[in-house]
Amino acid sequence: MQRICLECNKTYPINSLEYKCECGGLFDYCGSTIKNKIELISLGESKTPIIEKCIEGINLKLKLDYYMPSGSFKDRGAKTLVSTLKDFQVTEIVEDSSGNAGASIAAYSAAANIKCHIYLPENTPQGKTQQISSYGAEIVKIPGNRENTSRAIKEACKSQYYASHVYNPLFFEGTKTISKEIFEQVGLPEAIVLPAGNGTLLLGIYKGFKELTQDHLPKIIAVQSENCCPLYNEYNKIEVNRYKPTSAKGIAVENPARKKEMISAINESNGEIIIVSEEDIAKAKKELGYSGIFVENTAAVGVAGAVKFATRPENQEFNLVVPLTGTGLKET
Amino acid sequence: MQRICLECNKTYPINSLEYKCECGGLFDYCGSTIKNKIELISLGESKTPIIEKCIEGINLKLKLDYYMPSGSFKDRGAKTLVSTLKDFQVTEIVEDSSGNAGASIAAYSAAANIKCHIYLPENTPQGKTQQISSYGAEIVKIPGNRENTSRAIKEACKSQYYASHVYNPLFFEGTKTISKEIFEQVGLPEAIVLPAGNGTLLLGIYKGFKELTQDHLPKIIAVQSENCCPLYNEYNKIEVNRYKPTSAKGIAVENPARKKEMISAINESNGEIIIVSEEDIAKAKKELGYSGIFVENTAAVGVAGAVKFATRPENQEFNLVVPLTGTGLKET
Ligand SMILES: [Zn+2]
Ligand SMILES: [Zn+2]
Repeated sequence: MQRICLECNKTYPINSLEYKCECGGLFDYCGSTIKNKIELISLGESKTPIIEKCIEGINLKLKLDYYMPSGSFKDRGAKTLVSTLKDFQVTEIVEDSSGNAGASIAAYSAAANIKCHIYLPENTPQGKTQQISSYGAEIVKIPGNRENTSRAIKEACKSQYYASHVYNPLFFEGTKTISKEIFEQVGLPEAIVLPAGNGTLLLGIYKGFKELTQDHLPKIIAVQSENCCPLYNEYNKIEVNRYKPTSAKGIAVENPARKKEMISAINESNGEIIIVSEEDIAKAKKELGYSGIFVENTAAVGVAGAVKFATRPENQEFNLVVPLTGTGLKET
Repeated sequence: MQRICLECNKTYPINSLEYKCECGGLFDYCGSTIKNKIELISLGESKTPIIEKCIEGINLKLKLDYYMPSGSFKDRGAKTLVSTLKDFQVTEIVEDSSGNAGASIAAYSAAANIKCHIYLPENTPQGKTQQISSYGAEIVKIPGNRENTSRAIKEACKSQYYASHVYNPLFFEGTKTISKEIFEQVGLPEAIVLPAGNGTLLLGIYKGFKELTQDHLPKIIAVQSENCCPLYNEYNKIEVNRYKPTSAKGIAVENPARKKEMISAINESNGEIIIVSEEDIAKAKKELGYSGIFVENTAAVGVAGAVKFATRPENQEFNLVVPLTGTGLKET
């Protein structure tokens, strides 16, 4: 049970302070949380439902993956990561997300009695930090912009464990549990359509199905906002200097650290990358709401992409699963 | 399958427009939604978990009843009510809650394709209506205060069906499903401690356990804020002219229509009514959060009451279940 560098294969213990390899490579995980009998922290979460809905004329299997303790699928990652750290006697962690990942890590840290510090830019609106604070996590406000916060967290994690939803491979060990549930609920879908930012869902889906089905992956269809689509641009060799704001805050990531892994997973699955407009996102969100499903904008991105994908004549018979990532209550 | 007046026993069809008996009495329900094979609308909800936590030194079994599609236990009532109305070909309904009940009714109406109008005082903050609007419900803003809105809805329901979480007994047919789950999960608790406002939870618990166990009811311990405790005052024959605001918005009900039924249920169960201070509520909410459980203030009322109840020497061995009514995300 170790972390292994994706570039040079050097291994590191689970609980050492490095969050990247000395060569600069990112970590993957090798080992088994099951074999190592990690005692999982529970906040009462259980298998999330899949319901079928017709959205914009397209039949979709919606995996309501925000029916989770803190209101987003990121609870999967936090549960596995925090439980493992608890087992390794880590007592204090740092993280730098004001969004769903921050709330998830704070919630499970509270349940595990691990001290948690969340680093955020000074100007982060209070509404975004209220849930995190409610779990007793300390908010560390860093003057200046997002860059300053990144520098501060990288300084902090020289002495405290970085429970990052981006760098820490144990987070993906958690998000991959969604694949097993989908497989049990509806078998092997032809395609899974999902919003892609940092890749916590995409790489979780990939890792999960890889273990379950080896060479029979569902097509992974990654969807991004056309206002912020670094994956799409990298894939299509388009150069962009600046991205525009998107309503889909959960995937407003201009330079995802695991871009290379994400593109490789999409390719291996014979998938693709789709971009949708802000209007597409708003329309999908509205139609979901009118069906009784209230989600965050980021979740609507996947649905908008699924509609676009399934509208093509050659894809009309596709059996599509779309995970919905977060509750709309996070954005009221 | 009818509604029956609690005062004079006159019966009314499920789908007639009267929301009260002509004698002024409130309706109970007689019949069986199961026998009548009502096809239940689903938003993917399933049995909510019970987890054990030690809060303020007291071991509590917390029923996380806000792990529900719209984020509160009121989805239980809305599911049964709206599904039954759908079965009776009702196509349009009115309701007057800006809180959890309004969101639940709007969500299930959307799923059932029933047109839903929510009547609210003009000055209701937009944050409170955003979720309701997202489900496609029409918000009808009534100038003036809450009294004006009450008058307006009573006028409206002369021509449209009043899907009230207070007057419509089908709502309680839904909330009572919590009892069966508790019974399956932990057997018969000695006491159930819950926040009491309009009595949607209290009467649901009572009806459910009455059906399950007849004469062996768990003690029903109703908890109110000392700032707004009409049940407590009625019980103890205390006269109060004005109530103060409470942070527990879900139970800020000065004159609950079903007060008599609630007190009768408490008495039959050999239960009692406890009041807690605003400080008690805040403390309970904070301790829940620090355990990884982020709830609305109203949910913390039940926990504060349970702590008060269990602190008495004679109650220390009690096996307590506390349903948590709504997610904290509703109040950020
Ligand atoms: Zn390396
Ligand atoms: Zn009558």
